[in-house]
Amino acid sequence: MVQIGDYGPMWVYPTSTFDCVVADPKKGSKMYGLKSYIEYQLTCTNTNRSVNHRYKHFDWLYERLLVKFGLAIPIPSLPDKQVTGRFEEEFIKMRMERLQAWMTRMCRHPVVSESEVFQQFLNFRDEKEWKTGKRKAEKDETVGVMIFSTMEPEAPDLDMVEIEQKCDAVGRFTKAMDDGVRELLTVGHEHWKRCTGPLPKEYQKIGKALQSLALVFSTSGYQGESDLNGAITEAGKTYEEIATLVADQPKKDLHFLMETNHEYKGFLGCFPDIIAAHKGAIERVKESDKLVATSKITPQDKQNMVKRVSTMAYALQGKPNSGLNDNVVDL
Amino acid sequence: MVQIGDYGPMWVYPTSTFDCVVADPKKGSKMYGLKSYIEYQLTCTNTNRSVNHRYKHFDWLYERLLVKFGLAIPIPSLPDKQVTGRFEEEFIKMRMERLQAWMTRMCRHPVVSESEVFQQFLNFRDEKEWKTGKRKAEKDETVGVMIFSTMEPEAPDLDMVEIEQKCDAVGRFTKAMDDGVRELLTVGHEHWKRCTGPLPKEYQKIGKALQSLALVFSTSGYQGESDLNGAITEAGKTYEEIATLVADQPKKDLHFLMETNHEYKGFLGCFPDIIAAHKGAIERVKESDKLVATSKITPQDKQNMVKRVSTMAYALQGKPNSGLNDNVVDL
Repeated sequence: MVQIGDYGPMWVYPTSTFDCVVADPKKGSKMYGLKSYIEYQLTCTNTNRSVNHRYKHFDWLYERLLVKFGLAIPIPSLPDKQVTGRFEEEFIKMRMERLQAWMTRMCRHPVVSESEVFQQFLNFRDEKEWKTGKRKAEKDETVGVMIFSTMEPEAPDLDMVEIEQKCDAVGRFTKAMDDGVRELLTVGHEHWKRCTGPLPKEYQKIGKALQSLALVFSTSGYQGESDLNGAITEAGKTYEEIATLVADQPKKDLHFLMETNHEYKGFLGCFPDIIAAHKGAIERVKESDKLVATSKITPQDKQNMVKRVSTMAYALQGKPNSGLNDNVVDL
Repeated sequence: MVQIGDYGPMWVYPTSTFDCVVADPKKGSKMYGLKSYIEYQLTCTNTNRSVNHRYKHFDWLYERLLVKFGLAIPIPSLPDKQVTGRFEEEFIKMRMERLQAWMTRMCRHPVVSESEVFQQFLNFRDEKEWKTGKRKAEKDETVGVMIFSTMEPEAPDLDMVEIEQKCDAVGRFTKAMDDGVRELLTVGHEHWKRCTGPLPKEYQKIGKALQSLALVFSTSGYQGESDLNGAITEAGKTYEEIATLVADQPKKDLHFLMETNHEYKGFLGCFPDIIAAHKGAIERVKESDKLVATSKITPQDKQNMVKRVSTMAYALQGKPNSGLNDNVVDL
């Protein structure tokens, strides 16, 4: 499951990959129309078959992936839950875009995309198969740290000191990147507000002031002024157009920067737990000498622990190849 | 002094015109260096001779022109007096520009530019001639409404009803233009503040956020990222350049709109007094029938009053040819 690639350890990639298109949001209802919801159509590019899912199904999948892989693989959080405005067109469109981005990342991950729970989410054939798969996934016991026992790095065990150093380095890096991403989100949000609020209002005011001055001039009764008045009026209208341009611009550029950084924030939030799990394992290896000395565990047990931590370290380093640094300059 | 031009009555223009260049501000002092001041050099394009004047001399000239012509011709106010920062380079430069604009307008006016006080201000040959001219101007008795007695419209007397209507029309127009100009100055001032304050600060923040994110990436230790980091860093620097561009822009365009509108405001402030003088004269003509009936004035006296009001009306209508509507679209 892990091999040594050009830039260090990486997951073994499946021979064929696929994408999943999230589209066509439709309003559905149950309990004789008492409850309404929005359903999205998911179509896999490898099978060309579609299934429908509600947001709460995505949320279920997210929880399953988090429980199963969360200590080895950062599972980015889903787009936020929302209570009000759930049926507004703009909200549905935005949520769909975000679910699409989330699915694309999940499909790209060699381990997540090949997992049974993920495959079942996309390929069930009827309600019964979906329910059965759901129950099975919820009973899966290979979760948490157990996931590392399923990994086989095609590489030698690592030195404990080196592992601890790398673990610290990843911790520092993800913390620093989290700070950087949050800062960018903060200033981006402020800029968005200014561009859609006070700034276009100001351009509108300038435009109106020029136009009303031209209107005053036109009442002067003097001839030979219509060119001048026309020019001032046009200048005023141009300022009003600038107002619209300024207000519309963030949707065309800042939007993508914000969405990508929201995704990053969702990713980076996973690392504290992952690193804590690794640190815990390293601590236990450190204590193992004492346990061997007092015959509480066998030397073979200790060797297995070292191997396990080594596997975890390979998994941790496998991360940067999972697409984390893609698209950051989608300005 | 007044003739009927293409667009109605206008002042008779002199056959040759001239401009006056305000330049070369120098620090001077008197009372053995106890008092410092700034002196500007004024050079007339027709004589190529120069005289020096301090702001307070301009202010003296302004007062003289206002007293002499103020009820017939709008004398735009001088740039504001200032107590602090009088010797700062930027302030001196701005004041010089504004004095230049004021002088240009005065030189352009056919009546003001030909007047003795104005000519003497520009053409005195030594301190003694300046002092003598100054005293003479201060003793001039052809001031206030008396100025109208020096005017000879080459046109028939006007109908009183028509005069009153035109007077009201000019009053409405100048009031509306004053409102329009003030509105433009207000929004222009707000825009200036935003462009030199919060807006560039925000672009700087975005620039810094991008650059610190690139710095974080560069610490990741993974290869193949330098292009990406370079791109993010460049994007960040570009945002900082945008900040500078935004902050510098108002000096390049808004400045001229604001200066011109400041001038207009100075012009328009003269009209309430001018119109009040006209209204007063019209009222007196209206009462004159009663005075003739009670033999308090002769019919000839009344005829002279009508002629006077007619002259005033021609003078009032002479205004729009004095350059008020030039340059309004210097955006």
